[in-house]
Amino acid sequence: MIAIFTDFGVQGPYLGQMHAVLAAEAPGVPMVDLFPDLPPFNVRAAAYLLPAYSQYLPEAATCLCVVDPGVGSARRPLAVQADGRWYVGPDNGLFSIVIRRARQVRACVITRVPERLSASFHGRDLFAPVAAGIARGEDCPGEAVQAGTLVAPSWPDELAEILYVDHYGNAVTGVRADALEPDAVVEAAGRRCAFRRTFAEAEPGEAFWYRNANGLVEVALNQGSAAQQLDLAVGTRIRLP
Amino acid sequence: MIAIFTDFGVQGPYLGQMHAVLAAEAPGVPMVDLFPDLPPFNVRAAAYLLPAYSQYLPEAATCLCVVDPGVGSARRPLAVQADGRWYVGPDNGLFSIVIRRARQVRACVITRVPERLSASFHGRDLFAPVAAGIARGEDCPGEAVQAGTLVAPSWPDELAEILYVDHYGNAVTGVRADALEPDAVVEAAGRRCAFRRTFAEAEPGEAFWYRNANGLVEVALNQGSAAQQLDLAVGTRIRLP
Amino acid sequence: MIAIFTDFGVQGPYLGQMHAVLAAEAPGVPMVDLFPDLPPFNVRAAAYLLPAYSQYLPEAATCLCVVDPGVGSARRPLAVQADGRWYVGPDNGLFSIVIRRARQVRACVITRVPERLSASFHGRDLFAPVAAGIARGEDCPGEAVQAGTLVAPSWPDELAEILYVDHYGNAVTGVRADALEPDAVVEAAGRRCAFRRTFAEAEPGEAFWYRNANGLVEVALNQGSAAQQLDLAVGTRIRLP
Repeated sequence: MIAIFTDFGVQGPYLGQMHAVLAAEAPGVPMVDLFPDLPPFNVRAAAYLLPAYSQYLPEAATCLCVVDPGVGSARRPLAVQADGRWYVGPDNGLFSIVIRRARQVRACVITRVPERLSASFHGRDLFAPVAAGIARGEDCPGEAVQAGTLVAPSWPDELAEILYVDHYGNAVTGVRADALEPDAVVEAAGRRCAFRRTFAEAEPGEAFWYRNANGLVEVALNQGSAAQQLDLAVGTRIRLP
Repeated sequence: MIAIFTDFGVQGPYLGQMHAVLAAEAPGVPMVDLFPDLPPFNVRAAAYLLPAYSQYLPEAATCLCVVDPGVGSARRPLAVQADGRWYVGPDNGLFSIVIRRARQVRACVITRVPERLSASFHGRDLFAPVAAGIARGEDCPGEAVQAGTLVAPSWPDELAEILYVDHYGNAVTGVRADALEPDAVVEAAGRRCAFRRTFAEAEPGEAFWYRNANGLVEVALNQGSAAQQLDLAVGTRIRLP
Repeated sequence: MIAIFTDFGVQGPYLGQMHAVLAAEAPGVPMVDLFPDLPPFNVRAAAYLLPAYSQYLPEAATCLCVVDPGVGSARRPLAVQADGRWYVGPDNGLFSIVIRRARQVRACVITRVPERLSASFHGRDLFAPVAAGIARGEDCPGEAVQAGTLVAPSWPDELAEILYVDHYGNAVTGVRADALEPDAVVEAAGRRCAFRRTFAEAEPGEAFWYRNANGLVEVALNQGSAAQQLDLAVGTRIRLP
């Protein structure tokens, strides 16, 4: 299985062109758009969402990850194997949280130069063919390097910030629920949010936090949009106890 | 074939995570996002759209249906076979119109408890694995119950209301075109709409109703947005003759 | 492979219903949504985007193309083979630029009348089954006609106009980059845009043009939305040197 993580969004001709390459070069391998609309250009947000949203994939899955504001510049193309699963994408910090949390890591700098390499769409021209190759069973598609040589920003272990707002208005953070006590109160935009196990446990209109289905702290409102009511957006800081 | 009906929307990590489960547990079975952006939390609208939009699927299709505002509460998880086709989802009325119109119905309450069951994403953790099992040929995945014991709200046979507005601004209702005479005039937001067979038959800017490609009465405007011009939204009542 | 080009958009029940037909009638053939949100009703814009975005598909790909404001009227349904690749859709000019640029063209008017033919959704009822048949290996599904008899509007070779705005705010034109000198300055909404090879080469906030990954002139802004900053929309004219 190839799982796509990108900030391309579901509109336009970007996902589809990557799908066409994957379908041609890894026939029969299912592809899923796991998180197709990560916040644009936001490598840090994506770095925290990646481990949370790839953790339940089969171990043999290959993650094709394209949040790449520096495409066309000198950043290196990578394939990283972390606890079995492969991640393919740019060396810009995108894999740094996955790597930090993994028990076993192997890293390769991709050296293959494709016949057609546009300046702006390495997702289609470089990363998709490499991901297809790995999904077909190829090993490290380039030069093995020490994981310690990769871009590794000094980001915190838990990122107390809104990383994504979904279409219901729920606001996902970069904090793992396991890092908080169940009676912790989180403050978002000045509003105190207690823990609720489910939406049904909250009063209508009550803002609360819950452990979302991927283990992250998520700020929500029962039968309403937390983002709208509390004025939350990608980048809004939250306060932990 | 597994056909997905949900209010998750096409954005975000929801559809993709269900796809990943289906691809892993029902390999080789095609999956299609039949109606991925049903109106959020609106079980009643979905109940009327479901029979209209599933009717042309192959009879062996399994419909994975997740409009589930009560996820995490006590509502029961269901698998219903109606005229051959299976429907998997919550017992909250979502299948009540399909059932009312079917000649043959079998119902099962899902008893399987998955190893991983999040409080908020039964679409991924419970309903997708059950749909995958049915698509692989499993029979009733739980305890057979009488269809008469299922949640069955006293909703009308035709719902004279806007249920969905598409991106052209066409407004789908819950009324079957067969329930109206071809010369019927429908009133939407105070505007009288005559029947037109096709968009090309209407004058530019004229509001009209037509039998949409799934047999429902749809209010439209030639070369314009009916929703915008007539101020129609999900929930707007229409008046039948 | 079946590649879908349409103005249906990614929302709603349209793409999914075409997918269901393709999955049933061309089992095992991968389908990709190559460009699912072409500008609504804009046959001319689609005609220029089609060759640019289909050029990298495998030669055996079938393009299912539905931008069809005249659906239900007398326009003819077509299947056109241009330099190997098949294109299926309405005879309304949609294929005219593909045809003009092809070395070899065969055209068929589709004569098959499907059992179920709705008045408004020929994409599902007529074009998808024909595309599925071609993908399964069928030849010309109708009556061979001379390419010269097809609708062929007198549109220019390069269309100096914004055809699509993506979710980053980049604005694609109908001009091939090969038609311009690399030092050409393009004027968009009164703003002079020089050539930059990559986003990284432009100053933050600088408007520029570049050869996009499909060979078209695209107006962009480094770390910003060109569409918003320059007030560009589909239909905005640009001035070439």
